[in-house]
Amino acid sequence: MKIAVDAMGGDNAPQAIVEGVMLAKKEFSDIEFLLYGKEAEIRKYITDEKNITIIHTDEKINSDDEPVKAIRRKKQASMVLAAQAVKSGEADAIFSAGNTGALLAAGLFIVGRIKGIERPGLMSTMPVIGQEGAFDMLDLGANAENKAEHLLQYGILGSFYAQNVRNISKPRVALLNNGTEDTKGSEVTKKAFELLSNEPAIHFVGNVEARELLNGVADVVVTDGFTGNAVLKSIEGTAMNIMSLLKQAILGAGVKGKLGALLLKDALSGLKDEMDYAKYGGAVLFGLKAPVVKTHGSTGPEAVATTIRQIHTMLATDVVGKLVQQFEEKVSE
Amino acid sequence: MKIAVDAMGGDNAPQAIVEGVMLAKKEFSDIEFLLYGKEAEIRKYITDEKNITIIHTDEKINSDDEPVKAIRRKKQASMVLAAQAVKSGEADAIFSAGNTGALLAAGLFIVGRIKGIERPGLMSTMPVIGQEGAFDMLDLGANAENKAEHLLQYGILGSFYAQNVRNISKPRVALLNNGTEDTKGSEVTKKAFELLSNEPAIHFVGNVEARELLNGVADVVVTDGFTGNAVLKSIEGTAMNIMSLLKQAILGAGVKGKLGALLLKDALSGLKDEMDYAKYGGAVLFGLKAPVVKTHGSTGPEAVATTIRQIHTMLATDVVGKLVQQFEEKVSE
Repeated sequence: MKIAVDAMGGDNAPQAIVEGVMLAKKEFSDIEFLLYGKEAEIRKYITDEKNITIIHTDEKINSDDEPVKAIRRKKQASMVLAAQAVKSGEADAIFSAGNTGALLAAGLFIVGRIKGIERPGLMSTMPVIGQEGAFDMLDLGANAENKAEHLLQYGILGSFYAQNVRNISKPRVALLNNGTEDTKGSEVTKKAFELLSNEPAIHFVGNVEARELLNGVADVVVTDGFTGNAVLKSIEGTAMNIMSLLKQAILGAGVKGKLGALLLKDALSGLKDEMDYAKYGGAVLFGLKAPVVKTHGSTGPEAVATTIRQIHTMLATDVVGKLVQQFEEKVSE
Repeated sequence: MKIAVDAMGGDNAPQAIVEGVMLAKKEFSDIEFLLYGKEAEIRKYITDEKNITIIHTDEKINSDDEPVKAIRRKKQASMVLAAQAVKSGEADAIFSAGNTGALLAAGLFIVGRIKGIERPGLMSTMPVIGQEGAFDMLDLGANAENKAEHLLQYGILGSFYAQNVRNISKPRVALLNNGTEDTKGSEVTKKAFELLSNEPAIHFVGNVEARELLNGVADVVVTDGFTGNAVLKSIEGTAMNIMSLLKQAILGAGVKGKLGALLLKDALSGLKDEMDYAKYGGAVLFGLKAPVVKTHGSTGPEAVATTIRQIHTMLATDVVGKLVQQFEEKVSE
């Protein structure tokens, strides 16, 4: 198992990335890591060289680079070299905390789509709040618009992931819509509802509304990239705003606030844990010939290690290989 | 000023509705209220008969009625009679806490669109978090899909509302999009960006992402009905989930939790106040020939009174009359 790591992507690179790799190495002796980036900087954080290969490059893609241009012009960038390694078969998967758009472009143009999948989707596993559980949602913004047929493929992709990686035997697949009734929606969601209803490979449970997402109403939620992007950012923005407001309110309450917060310390940190989006790993650009996985740019070593654990599961279960097979059969039907 | 009140709409009707009207009456002596519904039930909560007329009807629209059918078949329903009163000129505006879809249908089919406005949009004023301010957002779901031209009209409608009702001299109008760069978006948002940029009647400030909405980045946010609905419900769902999780966490912390919560009482209730969506009134189906305003079904008397205050401002500033004039000029150009 070889993972190509873009060691230069993200706000805290290469330190957070390399420290995360070191954490993951303790857990998995069966992964070889190919680290792409500035060798001298990377080497500072390497505590154990076993299973580590550094491929030096000076070039990297910045967070404000225009994605497609950056991929085409910066041919020696750490992210591009990592993608090339997967294409050539030297590595089995890519990890990056860098420019999301550039990683999507590298995934599409260098790693390539699985035959039969029209529009790979960006997928994350998101926590349910107030109870055990999580759900996979896609597309979270790899595409600015999608057809109904793409949404059907997202249902199949998400279900595959939930079965293989999250070990759910019969994942409940739902369609994000503007009402729960079967007849609701736009032209695209109405047609997608029909396609999903008639697909034997998945267990479709109907429409869900955005208000219910965090209540665990489904294991996989399917939506177009524009809406998915808006919903994900609404959830993140609202959670961030409320938590910072809570912090402000406590600080503004003086000594009483300090004492109150001290008494509620465990309760408040439990709250933070429940909302931790990084605990299930990163976002997968799913539908490509290999796992291409992205974590937040501001990520720390723990979240890097969690994402590597996720990639390890994807490789160990061969979820991508199984997908390739499934879609080859569909295409040849 | 005459407001037609659907006294039977909402979970707590007619009590919450009539008590809210009584509260509003104390503040505004220039409003006459026409209350539609069961006279005997309504009368129980009337504490002062001045400026009150009850129009008895036994029929009402339920929350689970199919909207368009309900409007067509239940011709004597309190909501339908209230809409008819506006159409015939007996009343100047409608208030309801009932079935949203039915109210949208009654607005479109009975009250009617302003000439030149293709697709009226559902608009709410939503609070900014952690600072003073608010923003108007539309369409929140009156339409399942919209063209770029509709989004342009929403920019003009929202700007008009913010100027007249919220008293903002030069409202910042933004387009909800999947990135802040000018070139981002779907076909519809790209075209809408161009149309909004070239519209002299508004102050367009460009694209905003859903993550930034609650940070006060704009006074008016324009989006299609499908996305608007998903974003509104994501914000509401996330806020509700976090607040209930916080409550659970405090309750689960036993005596320490109780004491901590007591010390933080003011801070926590301030948090609740900041997120109170009802403090700016109800949702307006904007683009119709008269104010048609809806509050949550679970609303209490205070929120009813706030929404009547909002309708009072809409009537006092003649925001709808000015809109009619503006769009007549556009149509005749």
